[in-house]
Amino acid sequence: MASNGVDEIKLVEGPAGYVLEDVPHLSDYILDLPTYPNPLQSNAAYSVVRQYFVDEDDTVQEKIVVHKDSPRGTHFRRAGPRQKVYFKPSDVRACIVTCGGLCPGLNTVIREIVCGLHFMYGVTEVIGVDCGFRGFYSKNTVALTPKTVSDIHKRGGTILGTSRGGHDTSKIVDNIEDREINQVYIIGGDGTQKGASAIYKEIRRRGLKVSVAGIPKTIDNDIPVIDKSFGFDTAVEEAQRAINAAHVEANSVENGIGLVKLMGRYSGFIAMYATLASRDVDCCLIPESPFYLEGKGGLYEFIAKRLRENGHMVIVIAEGAGQDLVAESTDQQDASGNKLLKDVGLWMSLKIKEHFAKQSVMDITLKYIDPTYMIRAIPANASDNVYSTLLAQSAVHGAMAGYTGFVSGLVNGRHTYIPFNRITERQNKVVITDRMWARMLSSTNQPSFMNPS
Amino acid sequence: MASNGVDEIKLVEGPAGYVLEDVPHLSDYILDLPTYPNPLQSNAAYSVVRQYFVDEDDTVQEKIVVHKDSPRGTHFRRAGPRQKVYFKPSDVRACIVTCGGLCPGLNTVIREIVCGLHFMYGVTEVIGVDCGFRGFYSKNTVALTPKTVSDIHKRGGTILGTSRGGHDTSKIVDNIEDREINQVYIIGGDGTQKGASAIYKEIRRRGLKVSVAGIPKTIDNDIPVIDKSFGFDTAVEEAQRAINAAHVEANSVENGIGLVKLMGRYSGFIAMYATLASRDVDCCLIPESPFYLEGKGGLYEFIAKRLRENGHMVIVIAEGAGQDLVAESTDQQDASGNKLLKDVGLWMSLKIKEHFAKQSVMDITLKYIDPTYMIRAIPANASDNVYSTLLAQSAVHGAMAGYTGFVSGLVNGRHTYIPFNRITERQNKVVITDRMWARMLSSTNQPSFMNPS
Amino acid sequence: MASNGVDEIKLVEGPAGYVLEDVPHLSDYILDLPTYPNPLQSNAAYSVVRQYFVDEDDTVQEKIVVHKDSPRGTHFRRAGPRQKVYFKPSDVRACIVTCGGLCPGLNTVIREIVCGLHFMYGVTEVIGVDCGFRGFYSKNTVALTPKTVSDIHKRGGTILGTSRGGHDTSKIVDNIEDREINQVYIIGGDGTQKGASAIYKEIRRRGLKVSVAGIPKTIDNDIPVIDKSFGFDTAVEEAQRAINAAHVEANSVENGIGLVKLMGRYSGFIAMYATLASRDVDCCLIPESPFYLEGKGGLYEFIAKRLRENGHMVIVIAEGAGQDLVAESTDQQDASGNKLLKDVGLWMSLKIKEHFAKQSVMDITLKYIDPTYMIRAIPANASDNVYSTLLAQSAVHGAMAGYTGFVSGLVNGRHTYIPFNRITERQNKVVITDRMWARMLSSTNQPSFMNPS
Amino acid sequence: MASNGVDEIKLVEGPAGYVLEDVPHLSDYILDLPTYPNPLQSNAAYSVVRQYFVDEDDTVQEKIVVHKDSPRGTHFRRAGPRQKVYFKPSDVRACIVTCGGLCPGLNTVIREIVCGLHFMYGVTEVIGVDCGFRGFYSKNTVALTPKTVSDIHKRGGTILGTSRGGHDTSKIVDNIEDREINQVYIIGGDGTQKGASAIYKEIRRRGLKVSVAGIPKTIDNDIPVIDKSFGFDTAVEEAQRAINAAHVEANSVENGIGLVKLMGRYSGFIAMYATLASRDVDCCLIPESPFYLEGKGGLYEFIAKRLRENGHMVIVIAEGAGQDLVAESTDQQDASGNKLLKDVGLWMSLKIKEHFAKQSVMDITLKYIDPTYMIRAIPANASDNVYSTLLAQSAVHGAMAGYTGFVSGLVNGRHTYIPFNRITERQNKVVITDRMWARMLSSTNQPSFMNPS
Repeated sequence: MASNGVDEIKLVEGPAGYVLEDVPHLSDYILDLPTYPNPLQSNAAYSVVRQYFVDEDDTVQEKIVVHKDSPRGTHFRRAGPRQKVYFKPSDVRACIVTCGGLCPGLNTVIREIVCGLHFMYGVTEVIGVDCGFRGFYSKNTVALTPKTVSDIHKRGGTILGTSRGGHDTSKIVDNIEDREINQVYIIGGDGTQKGASAIYKEIRRRGLKVSVAGIPKTIDNDIPVIDKSFGFDTAVEEAQRAINAAHVEANSVENGIGLVKLMGRYSGFIAMYATLASRDVDCCLIPESPFYLEGKGGLYEFIAKRLRENGHMVIVIAEGAGQDLVAESTDQQDASGNKLLKDVGLWMSLKIKEHFAKQSVMDITLKYIDPTYMIRAIPANASDNVYSTLLAQSAVHGAMAGYTGFVSGLVNGRHTYIPFNRITERQNKVVITDRMWARMLSSTNQPSFMNPS
Repeated sequence: MASNGVDEIKLVEGPAGYVLEDVPHLSDYILDLPTYPNPLQSNAAYSVVRQYFVDEDDTVQEKIVVHKDSPRGTHFRRAGPRQKVYFKPSDVRACIVTCGGLCPGLNTVIREIVCGLHFMYGVTEVIGVDCGFRGFYSKNTVALTPKTVSDIHKRGGTILGTSRGGHDTSKIVDNIEDREINQVYIIGGDGTQKGASAIYKEIRRRGLKVSVAGIPKTIDNDIPVIDKSFGFDTAVEEAQRAINAAHVEANSVENGIGLVKLMGRYSGFIAMYATLASRDVDCCLIPESPFYLEGKGGLYEFIAKRLRENGHMVIVIAEGAGQDLVAESTDQQDASGNKLLKDVGLWMSLKIKEHFAKQSVMDITLKYIDPTYMIRAIPANASDNVYSTLLAQSAVHGAMAGYTGFVSGLVNGRHTYIPFNRITERQNKVVITDRMWARMLSSTNQPSFMNPS
Repeated sequence: MASNGVDEIKLVEGPAGYVLEDVPHLSDYILDLPTYPNPLQSNAAYSVVRQYFVDEDDTVQEKIVVHKDSPRGTHFRRAGPRQKVYFKPSDVRACIVTCGGLCPGLNTVIREIVCGLHFMYGVTEVIGVDCGFRGFYSKNTVALTPKTVSDIHKRGGTILGTSRGGHDTSKIVDNIEDREINQVYIIGGDGTQKGASAIYKEIRRRGLKVSVAGIPKTIDNDIPVIDKSFGFDTAVEEAQRAINAAHVEANSVENGIGLVKLMGRYSGFIAMYATLASRDVDCCLIPESPFYLEGKGGLYEFIAKRLRENGHMVIVIAEGAGQDLVAESTDQQDASGNKLLKDVGLWMSLKIKEHFAKQSVMDITLKYIDPTYMIRAIPANASDNVYSTLLAQSAVHGAMAGYTGFVSGLVNGRHTYIPFNRITERQNKVVITDRMWARMLSSTNQPSFMNPS
Repeated sequence: MASNGVDEIKLVEGPAGYVLEDVPHLSDYILDLPTYPNPLQSNAAYSVVRQYFVDEDDTVQEKIVVHKDSPRGTHFRRAGPRQKVYFKPSDVRACIVTCGGLCPGLNTVIREIVCGLHFMYGVTEVIGVDCGFRGFYSKNTVALTPKTVSDIHKRGGTILGTSRGGHDTSKIVDNIEDREINQVYIIGGDGTQKGASAIYKEIRRRGLKVSVAGIPKTIDNDIPVIDKSFGFDTAVEEAQRAINAAHVEANSVENGIGLVKLMGRYSGFIAMYATLASRDVDCCLIPESPFYLEGKGGLYEFIAKRLRENGHMVIVIAEGAGQDLVAESTDQQDASGNKLLKDVGLWMSLKIKEHFAKQSVMDITLKYIDPTYMIRAIPANASDNVYSTLLAQSAVHGAMAGYTGFVSGLVNGRHTYIPFNRITERQNKVVITDRMWARMLSSTNQPSFMNPS
């Protein structure tokens, strides 16, 4: 086992190539912590559950497709309630913070942390941090009870408010100390989880008995390791409306083009899945797959061809696609450090219109739809509601069991605790040499944009 | 490796407890079958895919939660396109049949078998069997082309029609021979897959070069082994409407009770997930968890308690729950051999009304909602559309590669080929000693109905 | 002008056959009532409105289709704010009560009475009566403020609760006196408005300065005189889901019949409009149009014919249709005095199944859908939200202006005050010798059931 | 009665100030036209309708709010089937054309003209003109039958295609002659109806027996005289989604502003009704009500005030609002002659962001939503489906009865025939000195923008 050093990774090895990438625990740096029996043992709801508690040795295998003689590879610690907890419920003072853009399911996660702590563990002190990380030191907190969060999963957005951008880790941890908070639940994307990791390290540096648990949020599905991020299903579902509208608009005029911009700064999962689900899309453009406009094999040629064949076409473009082409693109960053993207949808609308206006061959009518905010502001669908619930409960079980510096994540359909570094060190992207992208190409029959000059 | 006998199971063993439960292959019983290069090799859409074809040795691990020293356990053959195929596309004559009750996604599966065969493999002869198994010999078939199936995924139901009940395996196989069909795609529940298995065995007995591929369909999610069945997500989503209505009705009167019956003959997955997603439910009753009405710890007592506390309550009951209590229940079976269930929703409505009418304590108002047909007749949502698409494509890849006697199923997030027996030998059920049920109990705070005298 | 007698009708006559059926006014029976300038005069929102106040002489014509020489006929008093009001805002103590079955828009009406009184007139004391008429004397009231009602229009049902059945007019008026309520807003159907009329008469008999305003509620649209009742549009819209499901179910099996029961005890408006909107219905049965099952020209014959032609059919039946046929029907009444209807949907399901089971000609599969509670529990759509808002505001303007014993109703697109008797003396019904019914018949091509032997 | 001159208006006067603004009739300019009994007389569906045919003298009163001694004013001819028709069904050759932007209900109108002609009158020759007016001479037509249009009302857009812009009246009428068309149904906005009027006049000039019937289409509801245009209800309903999203976005950040642009070039009905229906809007800006940004009483001041009070706000702006303010606005026109509007939503987003960026007082976050195409491309809701059906049937009855040069329109809830000039001579606008606007102002509590220096 690795040392307790803050920056080191806890690895456990086993036979046949077995590796466990473990998560930190409060006992890694605080000695002689007392433990308590898990209150679930006397919880009526859980009394029917014979072998309820997660076995300490349970781990979840990352690699699923194997050969007869494959090494067993990486595993993660299985999430769930433990026999012993490291917090006395009446001592717990938890806080929840949401950061970054909206995503369906945020309120469900908030609700379930509050209700999970309350109903499973008898924890009554849960506070909400207002408007993101900076709220720790610049805002009042709000008390969260099962009653106040009872219906919030039916609403979009986040009742806590959110924000992007810079914050002062040290001031946050000061504040955590001052308010005597000992469990910190942080919901946000990869930037936020990097911040969470820094908070965890500072807490550990100070030797505080404070668990830090992350719940990864990204509507773009660009967090690695985990099966999918909460809210993604809902987003793909809602994107269908925009694609349908684009299809109807395109189909109702001569040489009609419907152009839909969907979320996806660096990864085109929403665009790809929305295209696969819809079947009305003729071309799907994502950041991972470069394309070009002019000349043989280019987009303009394909548009002209499809219009001649069908009289109309639908294009879906992820917001981060073709950024290299957006010549005027500057290097601005938004407050969270995300590169500020030029609106590729507006840009492409203009380019296509210009191109066909210059040609005398074909009059086109292009309608551009940007449903971004209409998608991300809706409440989670049933599937994401259940998923968000389980993520939140896993985080609660983990924090109560003394784990810290982890995120709650689904791996191969099983809930796990994953160390921060594994989900922040890279982004999940559509692998365009993989079958899913080939399926998409096959469904649209679009060019591969592979043979420029 | 096991013998080629029809009834035997193909098992492959490996080191560290590795077992592959393999599926049959045409070459198991037909010698010297010619093979052809997979047409995908020259398919533009797939040309970017570097390592597109599934490695012959790829298998998918069934067991995910492991210990450091666990045996590796069961594996299934990974689905996907193979380097070589066993059918010349121009020789293929495929047929599709749908059996049993409606389920969101049926039309998507049909669409994708047709389009997958056509666009991936260049197969142009696909016929639809009208109205289920008996349609093989009692009905005309319909020709299916990408054009005729182009929009069907946006409609509920099945364009092929369906039926329940008895059929003559021998006549079906006669018909398959007579029509020179060599790929049979069978979409249906466990009864149907047992039928499919019988058809496969008869085909094998006759030594025919005909691949039989099943796509398991069950809105109840009661097929074992696979992660979930297509249409399940859509059903849980749509069930929210009924629960919301029940909640509003109950909430708008004094001592209001909203009772919703959901699908689930033998397993309560829809009821359980719909309850978890909604959070407005006070009591969820499923076939797997017995309950009783009268006396201490019984349902009547709980209803009275919850009404006194909140003034209203919502009960969700799976159609197969409490069948032992439905005294008048007879042993009728429907045409598919499913035990004909007494409508437990109507029965329970009456019982609860009677009970509280007899009591002079409390006047109740009960509203009973049965949304069954409104749920199962809707089109698949985006998530189920994508899922159904991939199941269909996997089936097509498998049949083209010469596999037979298999179903296409998702195991731990990976597409696999599973032998018939594994999905028909038992039903998937809610394990009430497992955490998911405990979560449900915790969310409703209902009694466990465990302590009858 | 008629005398001030409680039971007499206020009629005003004019030239060319003009008649105004006026509503009572507090000054009809209380002398020397002081008046006050309408606070709207100094309301910023209304300051741009040049000729805002309703002219005392404005009346709304009932008869729209006229001949050159027609007499002018009946008119109603136009709704809207008056120059003078008969209540000092700080003296007003208003109460709201909802009675009868749920209907989309109830919460919008409640919201707008509260907000209208508050924002237009500066009235701050508004109380809600809990659970219908009996709540006046058997329950605590709830204070209603713009803040507490702010979001209720997005929820179905009624936040006040409702009930059916008997009540004691005298005790209600006692309670109104005791609580010093001087404006009573009563939302409910014709039974409720009869109750409201009795309350008004008792108040008048006692000489109290209390305005009684009704807002007619009936999802069935069976209130006469008015253009349509609030919630009706939403109900017809939501009914489409059930009809779609029935259509899919019927269409997916051989000889499939989808049977949908819709609301409509005594009038078939929902069934008729839902049928017209859908176009998937083969037969629409309503209380106003008798039908028969057996023999030539009967329903069974039509079903057999349509199944032979199309292979499937959809039947919509209003809950009050064919009650004469429901042989076992007893004469029970529900608590509100509505004849308790046998569930004609279940009855007809059985009858049709029995009939075709007896015949050896044709196997049918019938699916029965009863979406009643799923329809009436949803929130109002946008159109009904606006409509409900205006009805509520009209009621508020009327009560503030001293009118009493009236309902707020839309007549030929204009808001009016209508005397109670006009809306309770008869029910609005589908006139089957009128064009709308003929349009419906033409769209379904169903038999007229006019030629039984 | 007026002369038969093409440009003159047919007026009929009667007692007490009665005026009928009549529509032209083929017999006005063709002598001795034969008539035929209406085929509805022997139509089974209409046989129950005792007094089915519209009385020749039936007219619909325009003025509804009257005084005791008001003159009776303008009337329109009542729509509906007549005893006699001027076309032999087997001689009819009808065509349908759709022009201008998409609007929910277009396909329903097309469907019902085809089905109405077919099922009510036995007319079998109906052709569709492809892509608007120019399609008469530049495109092939498509045959329309009840079968081909059976399901189109469930789809958005127009199956016929549409276009904007110039056309040659003379070539259209040549084409009508050449193709022996004798009924022309024209669906479009005021520009289109002006075109229809020119076509009618040219037909009359040439003395052709061709009826020209318009069905006014405008999602903006800016056609005068009629109660409302088809598709408007659906648009207001769908706009709620965008407003909800804007509200959630605004509510989830500090000083969040949600800005929604809705349709309405010259009239703000959609914005006003959507605001009234939603109740989440803080400010509604429409073309009819000028506003200003800077200084006391300006928009910036109001935004700052509302943000300080509530922390967030929602602004709805009609596309034609504030065009005077859009300094850079040029005088371009689109192909239909509509002034090309600068996108006021994008412009205002920038202006507000700039303003608050310059101020150091308050950091705002603004999200801009333009749901235009997502609204107008959806299918009609149930209410608009019924409404569109009746408009189409009225047009068919009118043309069969020999009327021409008219539009089918709802006046005070009754279907009428209105002469072209009455609906093209001006636009329907929100009257900001009227109560509806005051209601809106009262609901948002926004400034009246009336006191700029």
